[in-house]
Amino acid sequence: MRLVRALSNLYSQLINRKIDPVNEILVTVGAYEALYCAIQSNIEEGDEAIIIEPFYDCYEPIVRTAGGVPRFIPLRNTKPNASLPKANDWKLDPEELASLFNSKTKLIIINTPHNPLGKVFDYDELTMIANLAKKHNVLVISDEVYEWLVYEPAKHIRMATLPDMWERTITIGSAGKTFSMTGWKLGWAYGPANFIQNMCVVHQTAIYTCATTVQEATARGFEHEINALNTPQSYFQSMSKELKPKMQYLFKTLQDNGLKPIMPDGGYFMISNWTNFENKLDLSSETDKYKDFRFVKWLSKNVKLQGIPFSAFYSEPHKNMAEDYLRFCFFKKDETLKKAEEILTTWTRNLLSKQKSKL
Amino acid sequence: MRLVRALSNLYSQLINRKIDPVNEILVTVGAYEALYCAIQSNIEEGDEAIIIEPFYDCYEPIVRTAGGVPRFIPLRNTKPNASLPKANDWKLDPEELASLFNSKTKLIIINTPHNPLGKVFDYDELTMIANLAKKHNVLVISDEVYEWLVYEPAKHIRMATLPDMWERTITIGSAGKTFSMTGWKLGWAYGPANFIQNMCVVHQTAIYTCATTVQEATARGFEHEINALNTPQSYFQSMSKELKPKMQYLFKTLQDNGLKPIMPDGGYFMISNWTNFENKLDLSSETDKYKDFRFVKWLSKNVKLQGIPFSAFYSEPHKNMAEDYLRFCFFKKDETLKKAEEILTTWTRNLLSKQKSKL
Repeated sequence: MRLVRALSNLYSQLINRKIDPVNEILVTVGAYEALYCAIQSNIEEGDEAIIIEPFYDCYEPIVRTAGGVPRFIPLRNTKPNASLPKANDWKLDPEELASLFNSKTKLIIINTPHNPLGKVFDYDELTMIANLAKKHNVLVISDEVYEWLVYEPAKHIRMATLPDMWERTITIGSAGKTFSMTGWKLGWAYGPANFIQNMCVVHQTAIYTCATTVQEATARGFEHEINALNTPQSYFQSMSKELKPKMQYLFKTLQDNGLKPIMPDGGYFMISNWTNFENKLDLSSETDKYKDFRFVKWLSKNVKLQGIPFSAFYSEPHKNMAEDYLRFCFFKKDETLKKAEEILTTWTRNLLSKQKSKL
Repeated sequence: MRLVRALSNLYSQLINRKIDPVNEILVTVGAYEALYCAIQSNIEEGDEAIIIEPFYDCYEPIVRTAGGVPRFIPLRNTKPNASLPKANDWKLDPEELASLFNSKTKLIIINTPHNPLGKVFDYDELTMIANLAKKHNVLVISDEVYEWLVYEPAKHIRMATLPDMWERTITIGSAGKTFSMTGWKLGWAYGPANFIQNMCVVHQTAIYTCATTVQEATARGFEHEINALNTPQSYFQSMSKELKPKMQYLFKTLQDNGLKPIMPDGGYFMISNWTNFENKLDLSSETDKYKDFRFVKWLSKNVKLQGIPFSAFYSEPHKNMAEDYLRFCFFKKDETLKKAEEILTTWTRNLLSKQKSKL
């Protein structure tokens, strides 16, 4: 009760609507289980779920285990030749999205701020999605786990605050992301009582309840934050201020070394285009099907720098769209970021001098 | 890794077989999620699961949400007129059990020590079940969460130790029951790698992982216990010694007050037959369908003593078998048990004097 009351206090302010702590909030084993309950309780055999690519990798298997059919739509890079590539250049094509809706469409999953791209959906983009959801009577699952990790001037907009969207939106949050305590496995969903009640059926059958110790700790964290909002003591608001210089540092490091990064507006990940290196390296030691996997493994073994292949965030038929990129994380100690810079600079310098000596 | 290694160390000794910590153990959000994963990963639409009544209440909805058909078989009281009723008088009829197995039978769930009855299945009973499981190529899910709560001379026997049963048994345990930390939500399953791998698919889709803090704490608890086994420092072995006098105290209290208890061999619950009171009370203030529900609610409101209706542990068609009983818990502070005695004694004395004054 302490936790759902705290969640109600906070989010009622943020969405400007009184949220009933008992009937409109469900506490879950991480945002992950909230996604599971939201999808399982709304997808029957043959129902369709729209998933935007790139996507957090559990969306697809959860839809499939519920018997659903995922329909994928990629964010498209609208400025492929931009001198300063930005996450928000990646956009949905409204007509392409509209074409995916049909009588079987049960839900669409959005993720803002977005992992792995760092895109923060703006009001017009959310409105376009919301209008389609309303037109086709479709549920929106809004994965907002990075809601506090937004870099000014970008602003996080909650889907549930858009006109007439409360009644068709389940919003998902994460204590791991909110309080930087990944691994404590506490998340939540808020939304209309009818959706939350159905989620609760899945939750009660799979898990029954969450660790009381973690719930108590999280409740106390929220109670502190509710009082600290808009003061210098606010952890939520200090987090993105603390992270922005780390983001900029990694951005510059990648840029200086030819790994063409994409500037994120939120989250703690950055996508980099590695095609500058494609013809300079021999990746034949790696046997993976997709070249970003080969590059990431080669980089890990030979340069000792760890990324994640971008195609891991795409459906099988679309993975080829993603092979030019990899994901880095900048939520690291400053010395780790500095070490990354040293590693990258040394590597690219050596690569350059080898190229020159060949000439 | 620390936790699965500790679990492997302990259970390898207990079942006399080296358990692979990585491939033959799954850590779950309580035994509850282990049951969910075990059932979900083995039941397809129309498959049958045999459930022994009374049963822990989640077995039935988990089987049904997986699309399965539960087949219920009650434990039958073989000594209804015993002067000292014992949990182990309640037995399966071997022919009745055999008649439930057919080509659709996928699994049977056993629970020993048993909640709510306190029955500890003996070697012959387990062998009878094991032989049917082997004959019909059926999986056994063995819910052994009360494994350390057994009152001498009863002994807990692990289903996985019976001949040729390792390969068809998933055994489930609980840190909440093992370390008396209910609400921490940590459990586990061990068994053959093929079963554990399939459970892992469900686990990974629903939850992904368990709280690392709780895993670490539980691992440390096990490491202590592994060194302390068979010494006075063993918490596992001291627990039942500590609980037995509490069990005996509640038994005598209930007996002295005409609530005919059934002597358990394990667990921390006791079933009581309340039919002595049926004609002495007016339960018409309560409107529940089953009379044990009416009695339990009436008792809670009027006598301030809390039990659980026994029929809650039965399938709908069999609830009438259970209406004469209710469940009490004796894992309580001594002063709470003493208070229960005072409450019960005062109530029955008053009832008796009212009866007399009516005559």
